[in-house]
Amino acid sequence: MSKYKPRPVSGFPEWLPEVRIVEQQWLDHIRRVFESYGFCSVETPSVEELDVIAAKGEVDKEIYVLERLHKEESDKEARLALHFDQTVPLARYVALHFNDLVFPFKRYQMQRVWRGERPQAGRFREFTQCDIDVINVDALPLHFDAEMPAIMWEILTGLPGMAEESIHISISNRKILQGLCQVLEVADFPAVTRTIDKKNKIGIDATERELALITDPKKARKLLSIGALSSASSKSISEYIEEIAREYKNNQGYDILQTGINELTFVLDSLKHLPPYAVNADLSIVRGLDYYTGTVYETWFRDDPGYGSICSGGRYDDLAGQYINKKLPGVGISIGFSRLFARMLEKGKLPVGPKCPADILMILPSEERRAEAAKAAQTLRGRGLNVELFHAPKKIPDQLKYASRKGIPYVWFPDEDGHKVKTMATGEQSSADPALWESPKS
Amino acid sequence: MSKYKPRPVSGFPEWLPEVRIVEQQWLDHIRRVFESYGFCSVETPSVEELDVIAAKGEVDKEIYVLERLHKEESDKEARLALHFDQTVPLARYVALHFNDLVFPFKRYQMQRVWRGERPQAGRFREFTQCDIDVINVDALPLHFDAEMPAIMWEILTGLPGMAEESIHISISNRKILQGLCQVLEVADFPAVTRTIDKKNKIGIDATERELALITDPKKARKLLSIGALSSASSKSISEYIEEIAREYKNNQGYDILQTGINELTFVLDSLKHLPPYAVNADLSIVRGLDYYTGTVYETWFRDDPGYGSICSGGRYDDLAGQYINKKLPGVGISIGFSRLFARMLEKGKLPVGPKCPADILMILPSEERRAEAAKAAQTLRGRGLNVELFHAPKKIPDQLKYASRKGIPYVWFPDEDGHKVKTMATGEQSSADPALWESPKS
Repeated sequence: MSKYKPRPVSGFPEWLPEVRIVEQQWLDHIRRVFESYGFCSVETPSVEELDVIAAKGEVDKEIYVLERLHKEESDKEARLALHFDQTVPLARYVALHFNDLVFPFKRYQMQRVWRGERPQAGRFREFTQCDIDVINVDALPLHFDAEMPAIMWEILTGLPGMAEESIHISISNRKILQGLCQVLEVADFPAVTRTIDKKNKIGIDATERELALITDPKKARKLLSIGALSSASSKSISEYIEEIAREYKNNQGYDILQTGINELTFVLDSLKHLPPYAVNADLSIVRGLDYYTGTVYETWFRDDPGYGSICSGGRYDDLAGQYINKKLPGVGISIGFSRLFARMLEKGKLPVGPKCPADILMILPSEERRAEAAKAAQTLRGRGLNVELFHAPKKIPDQLKYASRKGIPYVWFPDEDGHKVKTMATGEQSSADPALWESPKS
Repeated sequence: MSKYKPRPVSGFPEWLPEVRIVEQQWLDHIRRVFESYGFCSVETPSVEELDVIAAKGEVDKEIYVLERLHKEESDKEARLALHFDQTVPLARYVALHFNDLVFPFKRYQMQRVWRGERPQAGRFREFTQCDIDVINVDALPLHFDAEMPAIMWEILTGLPGMAEESIHISISNRKILQGLCQVLEVADFPAVTRTIDKKNKIGIDATERELALITDPKKARKLLSIGALSSASSKSISEYIEEIAREYKNNQGYDILQTGINELTFVLDSLKHLPPYAVNADLSIVRGLDYYTGTVYETWFRDDPGYGSICSGGRYDDLAGQYINKKLPGVGISIGFSRLFARMLEKGKLPVGPKCPADILMILPSEERRAEAAKAAQTLRGRGLNVELFHAPKKIPDQLKYASRKGIPYVWFPDEDGHKVKTMATGEQSSADPALWESPKS
C-alpha cells in the first residue's frame, strides 16, 4: 500500500516533547511575571471580521481569510480573517466590553497570530506573541511607560537559557523627532521617521542622502545627528538636543521637543533600579508604525543587532477611536515569542527538557501487584508529584530503560513491606514512604 | 465622526477578565492532572494541508480553508485548512516524528479547533479541546483503557464549580456489538452502530423499526436489548449477553463477543477505586465514528442527558496507517472544554473570579514616596505575590475604591517606619513586613 508522506507545514512550527516542555517553562515564566504586576489575562478569538482586520491596511497582503470548504451561495456572513497581531483585537475587545472593564485596564495576551507571508527561512506564518498593554480613559500616567521595560527586562533575563545572553532595551520618544521636525520646519515627519527607521539597514550615508531628499542637507544632517544619538543615560542626549533647540527656541514645535525630552528623562530615571547595561536611550528607535505617539521601545541582542528587535512597543494616543467616542490612550510592549524561542533553540542555547513531565516511574512488579503500585502512584500524585505507572509487568531492566529513555529522574519500587526509590542519575537507592517522600530536586 | 460598531464574532467565544481567570483555573487544573499521570504536552500548528484534513471526509463541510488575501497567481502552495480536531494532527505528528518519540507515547494536547458550521445557539465555531491519547507500536496494553476514564473522573470532578454536578462516565466495548452482529449473522455492523447510536435521540421504538430494516424483527429486538443494557457493574450485562451468546456459541463472531466482554470487564474492574456512581457499563454507547474498535467512552450530566456527552473517546487500531508501515494502536479521550465551560457559565455555576490576578494593591502615598512603594512591591513579588503598584498619588479612598472594583483582596500602605496591610473583605488592618508577610488565604 502506498503511503502518504507526512511532512511539516512550512512556516508553522511544532516541537518535539522535550522542546515543548521548555517552551511551556518559558510561557509559564512570562505569565507569572505578567501576573506579578497585576496584569489580567485576556484571550480573543483567532479571527475578526475582515473589515476590522484590514482597516489598518499596512499588512493586508499578509492576511489569511477563512473560507468554508463547502460554502452555500446563500451565506451572507461577514468574511472572517485570522488576526495578525493582538492590538487590533484588543481595540475591538476594549470597545465592545468598555462598560465591563475597570480602567486603567492592564491586560496580558499570549496567543498565536498569523501572517500569510511567502515561506522563507526564519519567518513564521503562525507564531506566538506575548503582549501587555495598559489602557486608560482620557489620560494615562507616564508611570506605565516606565513599568513596561522593567517588566520585560525581568522576563527576558529570567527565561531558561537567556541568562547568558547580552540584551538591551533601547528607548526613545517620538515627540523628540516630531518636535525637532517642527522646529526645523521640516514638514514631512512621517517620511523622516520612515527614513531614520531604516538607518541600521541602509547605513548612515544612504540615510543622509534620503533625508536630503526630504529637506535641505544642513537640516538633514541635524536630523540624522539626532537619529544617531544613543546613550546609557538621557543626560548627554538632552544636552545635545537642547543645544540644537536653543537655536530654534521660539519656533513652533519647541514645546513638543521639550515634552519628549522630559518624558524620556522620566522613563529613564524610573529605570535606575535596573543594571546600568539594561536600558539605553537611542533616538534612532522610531518604530515604523504611525501608530506610536510618544515612548517607543525595541530590544536587541548586543552581539547580534542584525537579528532585529525581539521585544518592541510604545505609547499610542487613541486605541479605539474608530469604535467609540472615548479617548483611550495606552502603552504596550510585545515579545516576539516564537522568533526568540526558535533562535535560542537553533543556536543550541536552550536547556534540553525531558521527554515527559513525570518525576517518578512507578514500577509494575507483576500483574498481581498492580493495585498496590497504583495506590502508591495515587498517593504520590495527591502530594503534587507527577507519576507514570508502568503499563505492563515487564522485566525490571526494561522498565528502567523506559524511565531512562523518557528522562524520568526517579524510579519507585512499590512494596508494602518497604518501598524503595532509585535516583536514575546516580543509581542510589533508598527506602521511602509514598506519603512522605520529597524529591531532592524540589 | 461616525463610528464602526464593535461586535462579537458569532460562534467565536471570548470572556471578560473575571471569567477568563476561572477558565485559566480550569485549564491549569486539567494540565496538572494530565501531567501527574506522566502525559507530555504537544501542540501542533493550527493548520494542516487540506488533503490531510479532508482525508476523513466526514466533516468536510465544516472545514475552514485559508486563503491569503492577495494571493499571487504564481503561488503553487498546498492549500491549508484549520484543524477540526486534534486526532488528525496527532496522526501526522506521530508519523512525522516517529523516530524521535518514545513509545508508549502518552501525550496531552489542549488547543483550539475550528468547525465552520452555520452559527447557532450553543454551537461554537472555535473551541478548545483537551485530549489525551496513548499510542504504542503493534499492541497497546488494556491498562490504558482503564487509565483514561480514571484521569477524566479526577479532572471533571475537581474543576472549580463542578463539584456539585452529578456526572457519570459510560463505558462500552464495540467488540460486543460487533461480535453479536456476526453471531446473529447481521452483515451491516456499521448500519447497526449508527442506528443504536441514535437511540437516545429518536427513542426505542423508532430504533427498533430502523433495526428491523437492517435485519429481521427478532434479531432487531436482540440487538436492541443489548443496546439498551446499562449497569453499574459488568456482571448483569455479561450474564445476559452470555445467555444470548450460548444459543450461538458455535457461530463465527463468538470470540469477538467474548473478547469484548472480557475487555469491558477488565476496564470496569480496574475502576473499582472510583465511587460506585462514577462509571457504568452502557452498551448503547457505540460512538458514531467507524474509527473506534474496542473500548468507547461518553460522559453525561445525570440530570441533563440531553446535553450530550462532555467527554468522549475510545480505542482505535491504527492511528497512522495512511503514513507509515507500522501498526499504531491507541486509546484516547477528549474533553469538550469550551462547551462544558460555557454551559457552567450560562447556568451561573462557575465561581466568579476577580478582575485581575493581583493579591495586593500597593498604595502610592505621594510622588516622592514612589521609590519606597515600588521597592516594597518588588520585595513582595520576589516572594511569589502578585502586586499592582497604584499608578498615581491619588487620594487614599480613590485607591481603595480601585482595589475594590478590581477585586484585589489586600491593600498595602508602604512606609519605612512601619508598613501596614488592610484586608479588603473585613477592613482589618495590621502591621506587616514585605519580606515576611504571608497572605492568610494561601
